[in-house]
Amino acid sequence: MPATSPAATTFRLDEAVALLERTPSLLDAQLRGLPEPWLSCDEGPKTWSPFLVVGHLIHGEKTDWIPRARQILDKGETRPFEPFDRFAQIEATKGRPLADLLDEFAILRRASLDELAAMNLGEKELDRRGRHPELGAVTLRQLLATWVAHDLDHVQQIARVMAKRYAGECGPWSAYLRIVRE
Amino acid sequence: MPATSPAATTFRLDEAVALLERTPSLLDAQLRGLPEPWLSCDEGPKTWSPFLVVGHLIHGEKTDWIPRARQILDKGETRPFEPFDRFAQIEATKGRPLADLLDEFAILRRASLDELAAMNLGEKELDRRGRHPELGAVTLRQLLATWVAHDLDHVQQIARVMAKRYAGECGPWSAYLRIVRE
Repeated sequence: MPATSPAATTFRLDEAVALLERTPSLLDAQLRGLPEPWLSCDEGPKTWSPFLVVGHLIHGEKTDWIPRARQILDKGETRPFEPFDRFAQIEATKGRPLADLLDEFAILRRASLDELAAMNLGEKELDRRGRHPELGAVTLRQLLATWVAHDLDHVQQIARVMAKRYAGECGPWSAYLRIVRE
Repeated sequence: MPATSPAATTFRLDEAVALLERTPSLLDAQLRGLPEPWLSCDEGPKTWSPFLVVGHLIHGEKTDWIPRARQILDKGETRPFEPFDRFAQIEATKGRPLADLLDEFAILRRASLDELAAMNLGEKELDRRGRHPELGAVTLRQLLATWVAHDLDHVQQIARVMAKRYAGECGPWSAYLRIVRE
């Protein structure tokens, strides 16, 4: 049985969408209105602040998830995806208020999920393949599962970056808190 | 300069409260109304589901953070804290709907922060010491910083546990996603 068979997968489109559609409100709850030091803190040189993570998620909505889903449906494996620029947000977000970024992300995510719904995907479409420029053949189902895991990864990252701000503040308790030491 | 000196610390009570007060809405955004498989998934035997994490946070409000802060102010180092039961929530939450747990946590957290505000803590009080049953001398500032980091740790945990549900679904992309492999 291939790994992408519906019977072998825990992926369900409705469950994936249930997570994807709440990420804007989750980021709002995590970040909107916080004192500035929580937004600009990072894990050292070349690491991302919570602010930059939101910029990265915006760039993903614009160039990654739905554009790639569309390409899989339209072109299959004939042409590799455009490589994703993991650093585009650094210039694109400079000087903007976080509230603007959160608003923009929410609008883009809504539009992404509207387009996803309009694709009316069944198991057959989810099995369709595209070509990743580095990873090779991937299915549409894998793309959508990765979209979910990627959101969760960055929610986790934001929590970790903020926790590390207090790495030196927890005293002996840091022995119990892996998050401040990671 | 002692590690707990205000000049050597990044801890600020107002910034800590800004995070603590949003954890109920953050958990709501993360979990309320999600399809059940996202709430009951875990990382294997003896690990916690998102549902159990919320139960654990409730137990912390009742027995850990503010009770220990009160004890530091009232008794100092004369008596160790009551040990915290990390498994109390397993029985206490059995059969309850998640929405009830989220409501209870929000009420308890509001009451905790009201009591914290009423303590009217200055740097002198934040320097006061209590005694942890395993870790020894700890300051009130360290307790409050740990409260913040502990919230963030469990936000991170919930994101990680949910992401791992899709560990087998991301295909080649799992090479890019540490969260599904941790």
